[in-house]
Amino acid sequence: MLAFEKLISIQKTNNTRLCIGLDPQIEKIPKGLAKDTLGILEFNKIIINCTWKFVCAYKINFAFYEQFGSKGIEIIEKTLEIIPKNIVTIADGKRADIGNTSKAYAKAFYEHFKFDCATLNPFLGIDSLEPFFEYPDKLNFVLICTSNPGASDFQKLEINDAKLYEIILKRLLARFDQSNLGFVVGATNEKEFSLIRDQTNEHFILLPGIGTQGGNLGKILFLNNNKNLIVNVSRDIIFASSEKDFEQKIIERTRFYYENLTLVDV
Amino acid sequence: MLAFEKLISIQKTNNTRLCIGLDPQIEKIPKGLAKDTLGILEFNKIIINCTWKFVCAYKINFAFYEQFGSKGIEIIEKTLEIIPKNIVTIADGKRADIGNTSKAYAKAFYEHFKFDCATLNPFLGIDSLEPFFEYPDKLNFVLICTSNPGASDFQKLEINDAKLYEIILKRLLARFDQSNLGFVVGATNEKEFSLIRDQTNEHFILLPGIGTQGGNLGKILFLNNNKNLIVNVSRDIIFASSEKDFEQKIIERTRFYYENLTLVDV
Repeated sequence: MLAFEKLISIQKTNNTRLCIGLDPQIEKIPKGLAKDTLGILEFNKIIINCTWKFVCAYKINFAFYEQFGSKGIEIIEKTLEIIPKNIVTIADGKRADIGNTSKAYAKAFYEHFKFDCATLNPFLGIDSLEPFFEYPDKLNFVLICTSNPGASDFQKLEINDAKLYEIILKRLLARFDQSNLGFVVGATNEKEFSLIRDQTNEHFILLPGIGTQGGNLGKILFLNNNKNLIVNVSRDIIFASSEKDFEQKIIERTRFYYENLTLVDV
Repeated sequence: MLAFEKLISIQKTNNTRLCIGLDPQIEKIPKGLAKDTLGILEFNKIIINCTWKFVCAYKINFAFYEQFGSKGIEIIEKTLEIIPKNIVTIADGKRADIGNTSKAYAKAFYEHFKFDCATLNPFLGIDSLEPFFEYPDKLNFVLICTSNPGASDFQKLEINDAKLYEIILKRLLARFDQSNLGFVVGATNEKEFSLIRDQTNEHFILLPGIGTQGGNLGKILFLNNNKNLIVNVSRDIIFASSEKDFEQKIIERTRFYYENLTLVDV
């Protein structure tokens, strides 16, 4: 099954566009869990066990595991084993390199870890992304406009009459198939989101930047066609409490987002 | 000691600008070595043992290890242990993300693995790079103009009277100190290299794309001021032979580059 179809299917089954980002930070691990990589695995297990009915995907941000070296990467491998098979998995690594190296990254994400999707950085050009698109069943989310203040530095520079991110978007749309191509658009970019959405009605957009990063979910949901959208929330859900009641608080925050992210308005 | 100073020191000691890229590929591991991660570690050991007197740095490209998951990352950890302490280590991951995540990547490279240098991707903006520059003794090589054909897609787009890579260069020079800031410029970009070198006489430039990728080393060395340059060669050295004579062939190829990369003309 194509990752694209798997995503549509699980969004219908669980009636939600919510994705939870599993981005552990040792210093924020709640009381009662070990402050080490085993504690992180235990934390991930609890999060998955109490949220899997309310999400369409889990996003794993490699940085938060890579900081513990091989032991951290082992936690990614073990976490993937406990995610229910009908839920989509996203490797958030924002990788891409010259051909030979990109091929190895694609092999890592899609053959070793067996993720359904990955996030990619387009700076090195179209050929740097191609190895990821050689996996016909996978869905690649390419960074278009990110949620940080620095997104203005280069992504929004004006080139003739278009912004850099628009040029990138156009090149991607011309080159890759819709079922393999998605976009990352930070929720703090409301104006840009509308522009991008208008050109990509059938593509999936992964929307981070809600919650802690200050993106206004309501505005984006009302202003735009919301078909094929995945809304990622990480910190605002997983670190809902540092106390022993954390599981209950995670469920409460998940339900809050879940109720705002059902498919009824599509 | 600053990584910047360590690099100047080892370049003088070993009288070379040569960096060897440890980019293993299972299918190219020479005869006599196991075709698995342990074989890769053994291969790295042999390469390091027979080349460390002829290099200033080893560059470790994460993609080629990440494709084996946690076991591959463990090989990075073990390889770092056997690199002589006076030789510079470069984490080639081309990372960068929004602040929180970049902080975790910087922690990975500089606190967990303890690399001297890292390669970074500037697409997400200046703030995405800052966490790496919070390590005052480290040297960060930011991608400016890469060696692949796709470098023309976005990096060389014209914005007013400057190319995107020139705008990025200018912003970086204005923001970060010379002792922490280096640049990656692919050797296939001869014209761009001259332009960049003119503005960055005192900064280190990491030059990949020599050898297999077709970059013309001689031209770049003659046309430009060659101070503070690191020339990386990977495949053309490490895969010099797939036969049992591979150690001898690696030494021969290393010596070839070494003799062309001494410091006499600086």
